Amino acid sequence: MGCVQSFRNFCDRPKNTNVRISLPAVCFVWQIAMIILFGVFIRYNEEADTHWVEYRKKENISSDIENDFYFRYPSFQDVHVMIFVGFGFLMTFLKRYSFGAVGFNFLIAAFGLQWALLMQGWFHSLDYTDGKIKIGIENLINADFCVAGCLIAYGAVLGKVSPVQLMVLTLFGITLFAVEEYIILNLIHARDAGGSMVIHTFGGYYGLSISWMLYRPNLEQSSNLQGSVYQSDVFAMIGTLFLWMFWPSFNSAITDHGDGQHRAAINTYLALASTVLTTVAISSLFQKHGKLDMVHIQNSTLAGGVAVGTAAEFMLMPYGSLIVGFCCGIISTLGYIYLTPFMEKYLKIQDTCGIHNLHAMPGLIGGIVGAITAAAATESVYGKEGLVNTFDFVGPFKNMVPTTQGGHQAAGLCVAICFGIGGGIMVGCILRLPIWCDPADDNCFNDEPYWELPEEEEIIPPILHYNNHMVNKDVVDTNFSMEQN
Amino acid sequence: MGCVQSFRNFCDRPKNTNVRISLPAVCFVWQIAMIILFGVFIRYNEEADTHWVEYRKKENISSDIENDFYFRYPSFQDVHVMIFVGFGFLMTFLKRYSFGAVGFNFLIAAFGLQWALLMQGWFHSLDYTDGKIKIGIENLINADFCVAGCLIAYGAVLGKVSPVQLMVLTLFGITLFAVEEYIILNLIHARDAGGSMVIHTFGGYYGLSISWMLYRPNLEQSSNLQGSVYQSDVFAMIGTLFLWMFWPSFNSAITDHGDGQHRAAINTYLALASTVLTTVAISSLFQKHGKLDMVHIQNSTLAGGVAVGTAAEFMLMPYGSLIVGFCCGIISTLGYIYLTPFMEKYLKIQDTCGIHNLHAMPGLIGGIVGAITAAAATESVYGKEGLVNTFDFVGPFKNMVPTTQGGHQAAGLCVAICFGIGGGIMVGCILRLPIWCDPADDNCFNDEPYWELPEEEEIIPPILHYNNHMVNKDVVDTNFSMEQN
Amino acid sequence: MGCVQSFRNFCDRPKNTNVRISLPAVCFVWQIAMIILFGVFIRYNEEADTHWVEYRKKENISSDIENDFYFRYPSFQDVHVMIFVGFGFLMTFLKRYSFGAVGFNFLIAAFGLQWALLMQGWFHSLDYTDGKIKIGIENLINADFCVAGCLIAYGAVLGKVSPVQLMVLTLFGITLFAVEEYIILNLIHARDAGGSMVIHTFGGYYGLSISWMLYRPNLEQSSNLQGSVYQSDVFAMIGTLFLWMFWPSFNSAITDHGDGQHRAAINTYLALASTVLTTVAISSLFQKHGKLDMVHIQNSTLAGGVAVGTAAEFMLMPYGSLIVGFCCGIISTLGYIYLTPFMEKYLKIQDTCGIHNLHAMPGLIGGIVGAITAAAATESVYGKEGLVNTFDFVGPFKNMVPTTQGGHQAAGLCVAICFGIGGGIMVGCILRLPIWCDPADDNCFNDEPYWELPEEEEIIPPILHYNNHMVNKDVVDTNFSMEQN
Repeated sequence: MGCVQSFRNFCDRPKNTNVRISLPAVCFVWQIAMIILFGVFIRYNEEADTHWVEYRKKENISSDIENDFYFRYPSFQDVHVMIFVGFGFLMTFLKRYSFGAVGFNFLIAAFGLQWALLMQGWFHSLDYTDGKIKIGIENLINADFCVAGCLIAYGAVLGKVSPVQLMVLTLFGITLFAVEEYIILNLIHARDAGGSMVIHTFGGYYGLSISWMLYRPNLEQSSNLQGSVYQSDVFAMIGTLFLWMFWPSFNSAITDHGDGQHRAAINTYLALASTVLTTVAISSLFQKHGKLDMVHIQNSTLAGGVAVGTAAEFMLMPYGSLIVGFCCGIISTLGYIYLTPFMEKYLKIQDTCGIHNLHAMPGLIGGIVGAITAAAATESVYGKEGLVNTFDFVGPFKNMVPTTQGGHQAAGLCVAICFGIGGGIMVGCILRLPIWCDPADDNCFNDEPYWELPEEEEIIPPILHYNNHMVNKDVVDTNFSMEQN
Repeated sequence: MGCVQSFRNFCDRPKNTNVRISLPAVCFVWQIAMIILFGVFIRYNEEADTHWVEYRKKENISSDIENDFYFRYPSFQDVHVMIFVGFGFLMTFLKRYSFGAVGFNFLIAAFGLQWALLMQGWFHSLDYTDGKIKIGIENLINADFCVAGCLIAYGAVLGKVSPVQLMVLTLFGITLFAVEEYIILNLIHARDAGGSMVIHTFGGYYGLSISWMLYRPNLEQSSNLQGSVYQSDVFAMIGTLFLWMFWPSFNSAITDHGDGQHRAAINTYLALASTVLTTVAISSLFQKHGKLDMVHIQNSTLAGGVAVGTAAEFMLMPYGSLIVGFCCGIISTLGYIYLTPFMEKYLKIQDTCGIHNLHAMPGLIGGIVGAITAAAATESVYGKEGLVNTFDFVGPFKNMVPTTQGGHQAAGLCVAICFGIGGGIMVGCILRLPIWCDPADDNCFNDEPYWELPEEEEIIPPILHYNNHMVNKDVVDTNFSMEQN
Repeated sequence: MGCVQSFRNFCDRPKNTNVRISLPAVCFVWQIAMIILFGVFIRYNEEADTHWVEYRKKENISSDIENDFYFRYPSFQDVHVMIFVGFGFLMTFLKRYSFGAVGFNFLIAAFGLQWALLMQGWFHSLDYTDGKIKIGIENLINADFCVAGCLIAYGAVLGKVSPVQLMVLTLFGITLFAVEEYIILNLIHARDAGGSMVIHTFGGYYGLSISWMLYRPNLEQSSNLQGSVYQSDVFAMIGTLFLWMFWPSFNSAITDHGDGQHRAAINTYLALASTVLTTVAISSLFQKHGKLDMVHIQNSTLAGGVAVGTAAEFMLMPYGSLIVGFCCGIISTLGYIYLTPFMEKYLKIQDTCGIHNLHAMPGLIGGIVGAITAAAATESVYGKEGLVNTFDFVGPFKNMVPTTQGGHQAAGLCVAICFGIGGGIMVGCILRLPIWCDPADDNCFNDEPYWELPEEEEIIPPILHYNNHMVNKDVVDTNFSMEQN
């Protein structure tokens, strides 16, 4: 710990937020690298290639509608909306950081998905006959998923980092994600359709560890901007609702065709509905006068979707989904009330969006629920074929049984936590270097350092409105005089 | 009527808006009840169960793509967006009730859909072999539809009730809806794909009756907050547009596979387009200087979608859809201009969102259009098989002919009106009890009683009143003097 | 040019913005005309008609899921969102023109799609056996596409025209579009899945030419309103993101079933991701202090989707898409920085939204990329059948080869430019007539002439900000004093 502290002292840096060289440099270099790597490695798979018509005949596929595109494209678009509008607008709640919330979310997601296509492609979609990665719609969904992990981490450091730091956070985050995912899904053979472990647990702890490494003892200097205004809370509800509504698509996007997607959507729909009620209940119960807190409504209502991610494709049963949502609404809201202040004060983790309550904890719960549900699976409930299909007990895993699967699920969860914390500390070290143009402690949660703001806003709205809108200045003057006399 | 008046006097209640006990209690009790009832009754249907793979073989279904999920999931998600973003944001037009509009809409929809799955399940999806309700994607859509009826009713009482009252309104609303729907669709054998009768007419009159029962003679005390501001009108347009765009999905979501869904989407698309033009025309024509009124654009443009709900799956013909939309744009806009003030003044019905013009009247028109279109159906237009499929002339109804179907449609419409008015009066009686923590007459249309507002915002209202409505001049004057001295 | 000038002088008109007669008249007359024309011409096609069940048997279609509805409906709804929310909210960036942006966009799109169904129907969907246009889901998508051309043109004249002028712009725009499209796609046999040429190039030059004809030398009188405020920029990001996310659906909506739609979606997804990074890079690099400009983020990030429109269905390869996006982000952002001011100053083209940088230039690039990609196609890459399918080398075109196809693509691009410029000048002449109730030079970019505005907003903002946001009270006080002395 002393080592960390001295490293912190070493990095006592002067604050210069001018990213005019570094940001364009990073964007250009990385985008050119992407073009070269895509040129070398990435091609269409047989369902997106013009050879599809021949492939169809060869594989005896009766209709174009059985192209995977039609199974997954609607879910893909919903996931896409969650990534860009959902995550982006959810973070607009701060009164003066809406440009950064939506804009940097946009930037790192657009970069991240390219890098994710490569990283995940090498692990999962490499065609060994020609050394090319063959991509189709499922790869796009997985790339969006991969990006989600980094956007979750962004939530912890929202308003306290520069766009260059975010690009670095994303580069490493995607890399770590792809490795962790390969270990969990392929080597350990855990199932994680909605990514409770792979996405949310990893992303949550990754972000929290980075935030811990970047701890700012004097952050209260920016406390006047670390809150919402009425309008920004309404904007944030756009993010909340699109995440909430499309979460069934998120959890069902890459599950098995047919019953797998169908069941995952139903389970998620129910878990989320249940979460809303307990979130409202706890929010009201723990507030003086019983008033609801927008922070809880914006965030905790989503916890059920996270927590049902792993088990959504299993036979969790409708009431099981409701129970998971019920518990998560309570735990997540209590987390916002008690745990977030505690972590900031005693653990020195400043978690702007409360991702611990929305992603990390519900992700953990999701991993545990998944392990239990898997371990409890029986042939009488799933059917003989259903059990094999659902848990993919084929090939080298054909001798697995539900109880061992439960153990593998738990192992997967541990891997996700380790990668999140370990990776976060490592990347946090890098991000502490005094070269990243991050804002000073008294200039956090502010769009001003990185965005050209509309003129009048920078000076004084009242005067500007006064001068601009008022064609009839005399009337106003008169009004003002009247008021004062 | 004297009895109603004396009941009103009896309920002359002190106003306490602290819901700290009642709201959590209702949420917890009802959610736990849901879990128990779901545990006892609800299971996946054969298309969402892991036995699907065996079912497929047994039923000789050639591909996973024929799982009902793929026919309906895109429409389901569109409907889901309408319920949560569409209805929620449409009601954000009030200057200080955006949290309540979006937040309470969220709460009651999330509760309502669970209760709807049970209520509708008992009537429509009960498997008599094991006494379980078997749910799939179509049940989720129907649950969302059912919720829509209650959200419509919310529009009439927006800003004047507590969240606890809304939960009660929803509990009874869903129950009444399910019974009414069963009578109309199954016993009477009326067709109502888009729910002109079942959803909009019922929901509209249900809400209006409740609003009548909850009449507030001194509501003008809150008149300073019963209007929009520039930003809130733009937020409301988000709701309008998502409702407008996705209405074709709403009306086609549960129609027959193939041509049924296809035709319903086309008809709705056209009716809505036509409505926009006549709404703009009437709005401009009846306003001094020809200026457009945002209230009309936000609401009346949607009337065509309501009015084409019943007939959307019939051979209404493209021009028929345009005519329906044409008339509804005119009627609905005139309703806002003349009928809403009339109803408030003479019928003592305070209709915050004007649901009479957007849902009740267009719903009535939709029911009538449906009856006429059904009665006018001929084998030459529909084809022999087409007629049977479209009107479902099978089983006990195989001897029905279009003219009798027209009569049944009309009967269905009457049932919807009766349930709406009767149910609304009954529930209104319950909601008048002085136990629900609703706001006082001078505190309506205000988020303050039920929401923690961002600090700084709480200072605004006096100033706001000052310049416009001049309520408490003294406070403001003092403020100004202080600033300048 | 002298003739144009004298025409301009002739049209030195008094400004009266009262549209109380003209707007309702246009709306009613045109909507009634639509009803009559639809009655005479438009019917459902065999996939939306109740005869589908018989058609299915006759054509030996094995399942309802092969109805074109299920191939295209999800994409259709995404395109629909782009048209109404995407284009509408993208234009809300102006501080006082949000009602006009969203509302007039809504109006002209709703009218335009009806007229487009007719115009495109006569060219493409006329059933010669009975003289009727048979419509299905693909016609709805094409109607939305057709409308997009006019909405692009609206961007150039945003805030400077009356709703009546917009209706005229749309009527002629749709007409020109349908003719141009028929020439390019059917006569010249160019391919243009995403409409780089047909939609964006045409729409862009159509709008620019109209704006040139309507040049306002004294527009700087409205310069105080020709900018954004913080909130309006966030609203505009809603438009940007929905356009960005759903552009893969736009470019793939009417491509071939199976691999065609699949590939077009992938290519567009990648091009757009690449564009974001170079837009950010250039925006930061060319701004003092390296701050990002919201105008660039809102607009230039979309240029990649435009530029990949034509080639999206070809074997452009993933790296090809990235390269196209890379270049367009640079060119489009530089356009905003250098070209827009240049065009306003020297070419007398006032382009409110910068459609030249977002649509016209990227559209040109898209046409060129399409021509090159087509000319470079080989049987070894596409496969024998794939080549024929992709370029539709059938019927009268069965002897075409890729190189000639490349030439035809280039010819198509020229036609689009000619129609855009020629049509724009013609329609611009009409719109210069002093009868359209457009706003005076000092009243542009203002909702006030055509919309009933919420009362208080015109007075509040100063007070509101004054009491809450102002840290530096002294400045304000001084200002206030200045005003009052």
